[in-house]
Amino acid sequence: MAWYQLESQDNAQLDELAAKFKLHPLHIEDCRAHGGRIKIDMMPDYLFVTLKPLHIVEEEIAESPLHIFTGRDFCITIGDMQCAPVREAMERAWRAGSDTPPAKIIYLILDTIVDAYFLMVDHLDDRIDLIEDDVLDNPTPKILESIFENKRQLINLRRIIVATRDIGMHLQRDSGDLVEASLYPFFRDVYDHLLRLADTIDTLRDLLNNTLDVYLSTVANRTNQVMKVLTVLSTIALPALVISSIYGMNLKGLPFLERDYGVLIVGGMMFASTVFLLVLLRLFRWL
Amino acid sequence: MAWYQLESQDNAQLDELAAKFKLHPLHIEDCRAHGGRIKIDMMPDYLFVTLKPLHIVEEEIAESPLHIFTGRDFCITIGDMQCAPVREAMERAWRAGSDTPPAKIIYLILDTIVDAYFLMVDHLDDRIDLIEDDVLDNPTPKILESIFENKRQLINLRRIIVATRDIGMHLQRDSGDLVEASLYPFFRDVYDHLLRLADTIDTLRDLLNNTLDVYLSTVANRTNQVMKVLTVLSTIALPALVISSIYGMNLKGLPFLERDYGVLIVGGMMFASTVFLLVLLRLFRWL
Amino acid sequence: MAWYQLESQDNAQLDELAAKFKLHPLHIEDCRAHGGRIKIDMMPDYLFVTLKPLHIVEEEIAESPLHIFTGRDFCITIGDMQCAPVREAMERAWRAGSDTPPAKIIYLILDTIVDAYFLMVDHLDDRIDLIEDDVLDNPTPKILESIFENKRQLINLRRIIVATRDIGMHLQRDSGDLVEASLYPFFRDVYDHLLRLADTIDTLRDLLNNTLDVYLSTVANRTNQVMKVLTVLSTIALPALVISSIYGMNLKGLPFLERDYGVLIVGGMMFASTVFLLVLLRLFRWL
Amino acid sequence: MAWYQLESQDNAQLDELAAKFKLHPLHIEDCRAHGGRIKIDMMPDYLFVTLKPLHIVEEEIAESPLHIFTGRDFCITIGDMQCAPVREAMERAWRAGSDTPPAKIIYLILDTIVDAYFLMVDHLDDRIDLIEDDVLDNPTPKILESIFENKRQLINLRRIIVATRDIGMHLQRDSGDLVEASLYPFFRDVYDHLLRLADTIDTLRDLLNNTLDVYLSTVANRTNQVMKVLTVLSTIALPALVISSIYGMNLKGLPFLERDYGVLIVGGMMFASTVFLLVLLRLFRWL
Amino acid sequence: MAWYQLESQDNAQLDELAAKFKLHPLHIEDCRAHGGRIKIDMMPDYLFVTLKPLHIVEEEIAESPLHIFTGRDFCITIGDMQCAPVREAMERAWRAGSDTPPAKIIYLILDTIVDAYFLMVDHLDDRIDLIEDDVLDNPTPKILESIFENKRQLINLRRIIVATRDIGMHLQRDSGDLVEASLYPFFRDVYDHLLRLADTIDTLRDLLNNTLDVYLSTVANRTNQVMKVLTVLSTIALPALVISSIYGMNLKGLPFLERDYGVLIVGGMMFASTVFLLVLLRLFRWL
Repeated sequence: MAWYQLESQDNAQLDELAAKFKLHPLHIEDCRAHGGRIKIDMMPDYLFVTLKPLHIVEEEIAESPLHIFTGRDFCITIGDMQCAPVREAMERAWRAGSDTPPAKIIYLILDTIVDAYFLMVDHLDDRIDLIEDDVLDNPTPKILESIFENKRQLINLRRIIVATRDIGMHLQRDSGDLVEASLYPFFRDVYDHLLRLADTIDTLRDLLNNTLDVYLSTVANRTNQVMKVLTVLSTIALPALVISSIYGMNLKGLPFLERDYGVLIVGGMMFASTVFLLVLLRLFRWL
Repeated sequence: MAWYQLESQDNAQLDELAAKFKLHPLHIEDCRAHGGRIKIDMMPDYLFVTLKPLHIVEEEIAESPLHIFTGRDFCITIGDMQCAPVREAMERAWRAGSDTPPAKIIYLILDTIVDAYFLMVDHLDDRIDLIEDDVLDNPTPKILESIFENKRQLINLRRIIVATRDIGMHLQRDSGDLVEASLYPFFRDVYDHLLRLADTIDTLRDLLNNTLDVYLSTVANRTNQVMKVLTVLSTIALPALVISSIYGMNLKGLPFLERDYGVLIVGGMMFASTVFLLVLLRLFRWL
Repeated sequence: MAWYQLESQDNAQLDELAAKFKLHPLHIEDCRAHGGRIKIDMMPDYLFVTLKPLHIVEEEIAESPLHIFTGRDFCITIGDMQCAPVREAMERAWRAGSDTPPAKIIYLILDTIVDAYFLMVDHLDDRIDLIEDDVLDNPTPKILESIFENKRQLINLRRIIVATRDIGMHLQRDSGDLVEASLYPFFRDVYDHLLRLADTIDTLRDLLNNTLDVYLSTVANRTNQVMKVLTVLSTIALPALVISSIYGMNLKGLPFLERDYGVLIVGGMMFASTVFLLVLLRLFRWL
Repeated sequence: MAWYQLESQDNAQLDELAAKFKLHPLHIEDCRAHGGRIKIDMMPDYLFVTLKPLHIVEEEIAESPLHIFTGRDFCITIGDMQCAPVREAMERAWRAGSDTPPAKIIYLILDTIVDAYFLMVDHLDDRIDLIEDDVLDNPTPKILESIFENKRQLINLRRIIVATRDIGMHLQRDSGDLVEASLYPFFRDVYDHLLRLADTIDTLRDLLNNTLDVYLSTVANRTNQVMKVLTVLSTIALPALVISSIYGMNLKGLPFLERDYGVLIVGGMMFASTVFLLVLLRLFRWL
Repeated sequence: MAWYQLESQDNAQLDELAAKFKLHPLHIEDCRAHGGRIKIDMMPDYLFVTLKPLHIVEEEIAESPLHIFTGRDFCITIGDMQCAPVREAMERAWRAGSDTPPAKIIYLILDTIVDAYFLMVDHLDDRIDLIEDDVLDNPTPKILESIFENKRQLINLRRIIVATRDIGMHLQRDSGDLVEASLYPFFRDVYDHLLRLADTIDTLRDLLNNTLDVYLSTVANRTNQVMKVLTVLSTIALPALVISSIYGMNLKGLPFLERDYGVLIVGGMMFASTVFLLVLLRLFRWL
């Protein structure tokens, strides 16, 4: 079996191969389009599959598309070998030898790539664990950003997993001549893994939504507390301000003005009215 | 096969055609009603389909209804050729030649229009990407408007896609004499596309809801911060105000009144009480 | 066939008819109970159906129950002919003639009443369109009331549609001797309409929830803005207040007190401290 | 047939009966455990069913467990006859006579108890209607409490109905020797009622969530309004305070100090600055 | 039958057993990995099952993984006998005797562990009951923490139950040679228990979300009330402050300045303006 591995979809050799193996122009177009859709096309003479292997680049989950054409006597793969799961998938497929039937190659590659999805989910799981620990102790806007960023990644990851799951579903039933029935259980196994992954992502989203609720409730609580502090401050200051302003007026006839202990009496009035207000607020449970 | 393309449902020729091909009066009524429902009706002698091709007019997604009557020896289409997907669908159908069976015509048109739905979804996807980038950096009420506007468009787009999906579902099983069983896989393919579209729209809605949560949390955070600023301002100002008001009273006997360094002592009292309050607030983690 | 139409379930003639046609006492009880449940009962000798036709009374959606007993040689209907869909349904059934089989009568009435449901949904659709236009421009508590009122109506409408859908489902399969198999496609058609209606209501609810989110976000935004205004006001006023209070003290030794340009210097201090605070708030992005 | 009705599961007679009819020890244990689970166990010689009849005690929905052992020639029921639906169910079963087959007895009791569920749902429906009327006019914390209390009851009621529904599902298909196939339609009828009940409860929950949204939006609106009042108050007071404080300073050289109409001029300044601020706030739509 | 119980997966004896019974290296790897996934693998010669028994350690739900290899003539279990459900499961399996077929052993262990899940759910149920009682009387941030902590535990518990449910589903149908068809009903019973558990957890989550809504609404209410208190305080203090400040100005010509009852008149003005403001606020329902 002839095996061709191209590093990039822009390689001119792709056109030669397309001519040689009569690949459908639409599939070549799919390869050339950057960021193609996850899909499987079953042609009479070959299978065309586009996958989105995922790896972690600088703490971020990155996609690296992989296109596979596999017929009875040839296999063309287009993908970046720098990406770990692509490399592992290719090596596993090569190890299987040159007699491997096309659908088996698809299985080996698909299975390796789905295994890498588990790593991505675990990666997000760890980060969500960290967020859970942080959010109760120290809810900062930075944690909020982290929550939303992880939520976005979960949504994107789910989109890829669901699309890949559809491939798994297609391949486990009446999939034409190129897919042997004996491979159905293998594809069902991959399909089960993808179902489990989608389930786990839903759980992670629940956990993340929980931390968001924690964050928002804590902010609401704090706003409430800041309001209370402000109100207590005002309660303490306002009576003193009002009374001292009154005694600052240039009017005649204010009581205690001429007395020797006027200051003590007025100070007592301030203190008493503040205490009275605080007791009142506490009594009616307003604070 | 006789082929009639009318630009508008108000064309008087429609009545002649209705008489000639014995079209059901209810269907003519459906065409005449502006903004008709997406539907398929399978008559013994012809198929009647109403679709809602979508195109972008001034950055907005606009509908342009298309009605199709297709029988064994005639095909009447009513739609605005100014609308790109309508034009493309018609051209594709015409290219297929005059022997094309009715259901095949439906398929060619439906498939082209569903392809245009993908463009609409991509258009919204791009806009949501922009919103995602903006919302964390600079959450303004304008972004809020944009979020809700896109949400509305997603809801409407979903409504159209789900209604079109029902047509796809109808056409892939026991669909009467006019639909050949050999076309079922084609309609299933269209149906799969529509399922995928509905799925993608759900993902986009999740992403949009995420940005809405980002926006609202940021606003809550900012309100909280504004409250804190106000409280700190009050904490700084109130002791100074109270003390200076007290020393503005026309009472006799206030301490330090007659001393030379009275100003320094009273200023120190103001400063000390403010610092004391701020330390207190920080200590009890009230701010 | 004998046909009886009673305007009210309290009509004494109902008892005579019940005796004559051996109607089950429980069914008579169902009729007499005001606001009966939507249901179908298939007896060996007759069908008993309760429906809830809807019409608009003073801008509000109102229910007007309709009970139908239909056997091989009689048909008794109890409903208010003032209600438009009841009247239309009865007229359509009467036009069909006296040989109409019982299930056909049920179909004709059910179909007319379901058509009227579409009017109700369109009515709500129009009102939600109005709310959508208003909520961004001018969010008032009155719009809020309108949102909740329409939501309530959608919930109630959905309840009626889902209950009617169950009747449609019952009637399209093994429905006993009185329902001819040839009518199954007709009942499936009604059932499809009801499914579509339930779907549309879900979309309308999404749109309504969207407007609610718009409303609440706008209120949150405004509260935030009001807070900022209050804080800016305080920031402007507090330094001036503190400084002028200090210079209002009856203490000796305040600087600039005796200078000629004291007022200008102190005024400059007020202005400078306010500007300093505003710059500080802006710098730390607190406002 | 021997019929035993025990008022309480603690009756010693239960042990005698268990020995006599060879009841499984686990079932006796189930009876003895307070608050047992709703379940059905089909033994070769008898059916064991635990139900949770509901009645209203002091405006609250209360559970009163009912256990039934019914074999070919005996029937043991354990339940509190003080509870209305238990009493009605028992009386209905007794009326059926001593030849009633075991599954028929189960049906008669189950049907009566499910009918009582409808009363509970109607009871909650009425209370939610009252809440709906109150919440717009006069949203108090007491209504909030009522909303949450009713929500809790709906959740609990749903739990019981879903568990009972499972019994109905079990009994309408291949249910062993003790359940005659002729009873399947009866159990399907009960099952349909339980489906309808679960549906109605979901609708009630939607309505209750709607009232909660009304309540919370009204509170948000009011907080917003209180903020505005506070800001307007400050806007009116602050300019007057600042200006009068300035004129209270012991500085020389303040303008208008010595003029006769100084008071009018300064009063005019206060009034002008307040009006200016209010116009500004209105102009920028800050309030 | 040879029976081996290892306390820890790090026991070197595991390697000997793996060699002796030809266990798949991947399964040994699974055992060695801490915190393995819940799964079942059906090999031609043995069944490999990983479960996650749960017990309560210091008021917290803790996992204690249990691995089982069971073939025709051997059974290896790896689990911590300190964990109550592991110990009970093992004892029940041992009691069954050495002739027990492999699938029966799996059933006995699985059933015991699922019974322990019920205890966990009841444990959480009790704690949620306590939260429900507390949250209305005394909503503190501590209750908030408790709500979120229990929500997290419910999410995790659900994850474990759903994964275990998949095992139950696998084992009740075409499960290879090692699982006798006669055991299918037993596994279906376990599966039913797990379905019921998942259902109950969903109900508990609803109840917990209800308490969260109670909490948040109460906080919103209190913030609203604190705002009102602050506004009323300001309403009372501001008029007095403004008027007394005005009378503190060093301007000539203020009315009543020289009058004997000036103080009473000015005091009356303060009182009147405060009352006027409070009446105004009440009249327009702003407070």
